[in-house]
Amino acid sequence: MTILVMNALAAPLVQPHLPDWIEPRFFRHTAELMEMAPEAEIGWFDLEDTVPMAQAVRLATKLKWLTSIYAGVDGLPLSLMAERGVRMTNGAGINAITIAEYVVMGMLNIAKGYREVVRAQDRHEWLTDSPGKLELAGSKALILGYGEIGQRVDRALTGFGVEVTKVRRSPGEGTLLPDQWRARLGEFDWVILAVPGTAETEGMIGAAELAAMKPSAVLVNVARGSVVDQDALVAALAAQKLGGAFLDVTTPEPLPAEHALWSMPNVHITMHLSGRAQGKMFRRAVERFLGNLDRYHRGEPLTHQVDLALGY
Amino acid sequence: MTILVMNALAAPLVQPHLPDWIEPRFFRHTAELMEMAPEAEIGWFDLEDTVPMAQAVRLATKLKWLTSIYAGVDGLPLSLMAERGVRMTNGAGINAITIAEYVVMGMLNIAKGYREVVRAQDRHEWLTDSPGKLELAGSKALILGYGEIGQRVDRALTGFGVEVTKVRRSPGEGTLLPDQWRARLGEFDWVILAVPGTAETEGMIGAAELAAMKPSAVLVNVARGSVVDQDALVAALAAQKLGGAFLDVTTPEPLPAEHALWSMPNVHITMHLSGRAQGKMFRRAVERFLGNLDRYHRGEPLTHQVDLALGY
Repeated sequence: MTILVMNALAAPLVQPHLPDWIEPRFFRHTAELMEMAPEAEIGWFDLEDTVPMAQAVRLATKLKWLTSIYAGVDGLPLSLMAERGVRMTNGAGINAITIAEYVVMGMLNIAKGYREVVRAQDRHEWLTDSPGKLELAGSKALILGYGEIGQRVDRALTGFGVEVTKVRRSPGEGTLLPDQWRARLGEFDWVILAVPGTAETEGMIGAAELAAMKPSAVLVNVARGSVVDQDALVAALAAQKLGGAFLDVTTPEPLPAEHALWSMPNVHITMHLSGRAQGKMFRRAVERFLGNLDRYHRGEPLTHQVDLALGY
Repeated sequence: MTILVMNALAAPLVQPHLPDWIEPRFFRHTAELMEMAPEAEIGWFDLEDTVPMAQAVRLATKLKWLTSIYAGVDGLPLSLMAERGVRMTNGAGINAITIAEYVVMGMLNIAKGYREVVRAQDRHEWLTDSPGKLELAGSKALILGYGEIGQRVDRALTGFGVEVTKVRRSPGEGTLLPDQWRARLGEFDWVILAVPGTAETEGMIGAAELAAMKPSAVLVNVARGSVVDQDALVAALAAQKLGGAFLDVTTPEPLPAEHALWSMPNVHITMHLSGRAQGKMFRRAVERFLGNLDRYHRGEPLTHQVDLALGY
């Protein structure tokens, strides 16, 4: 029997479909996870907080495969897992549909000044002119990170007539290489961050990058708060050297109630909700897991396996 | 010389480009329009209010061509114009880009519950779950009215993976005929009204149509308030027989501050701003007008000519 340790919350969706070679053990809280982790061959250790998740991984000395509903694996002991020969599969793409929709929603809201319309409706006030007068059509967007989210954003924006440029390792039409985009930052109306949170992407948007952007440009971050130098961002926004920011992610999360970002007129804070704005996350994750369980048993390569060295 | 009567506000954009066979007369207010209208061969009589516009048209007995920045021509004396042999060109399509973007913005806002996120940010409150959990991807939309707005909405929604059905006079893939859509109303998550305001479309969405929709369906109206039986709409929303409404247009406009629609939790009122949420309207209108002015002079057919019998 192969021992699988996973969250009891997912039991109703998973248990009826488990094959008979699996012995499932369901944890109901963090302490139970810590008890069960050392016996796990397969682990689905997802918790809201990555610190105890990482701790469980360290304790799980028999672990051969760790799976997660999340796309981001930052915070996990990836090099330890690599040493121990643990494979990891993640949730990359499970949230991609809704996150890509969220990105376009944010851009449209900023373009049309829709937040002011919401507030006017709350006052029962009929505005006579639009608080925003931008069109997506004909504008230029740069997408940093071209995984499933970036590709879906590209497709949706193209449908609106946005001129999309993406950053990729391989050259191609509408593509900038990783060493080219900084020099071209001043050309874009929208800079969209959809990169994984890794050592390489940490602070990739700092004071220099913000200064290079158009003063009217809008930064959209659905990656990780750590990808942006947040103090530099606040300074650029306060000095009106940037048009606005649509931040699904911040440093830290939750953002403290007294933080300057909350009240800046050109900042939208969306509380890391973009991936949660869907009703299908668990069903998709369970389907993926069950497919991989079959592959694991047959000794086949797993889908959505994380490169532990690259961190995504 | 051919006398052109138009609003003085547009003079700076138009006057430098007028050919020498045109004698322009610029009105600064309604009373001047009424004085000048009887001499006009070409009229660009746009005012905020259609009642004096219509009055000016009646007075303009020498008028051969009336042009307008607006797409809607309801309120003008179309049959009188037809009797007098006046041609009319309109602004159909000038606002189509921004209105189509507005439609998708509204759908995304409702899908993700974004209005609640705006209000939470105003309170500096970090929400832990998304107030809306719908995805556009995989949902079904019906578009009534397949002019430039409807076509652009179709293209944008298709980019999100929405299954789009449109109502047209000619059969085709993804198309329902005008006598077919009512029987199929229960299939759609989104019903989008982009029809012209004519006698034929007045009240086309009444109590019966609202009752036939899914209880979770959202009605999006960027056409005319008169296309919907508004009392029936309020009743359906209050009884939760409809998921929501995104209303760029209402009856009347402005909507009185005490009207029930303002405060309904599932209603978005956008104050007829969709077409104004752009900075290019006048430039586009002037370009179109100058092109038509050349065609008029050469005796060629004008573009964007209104069928006065159909009313669009």
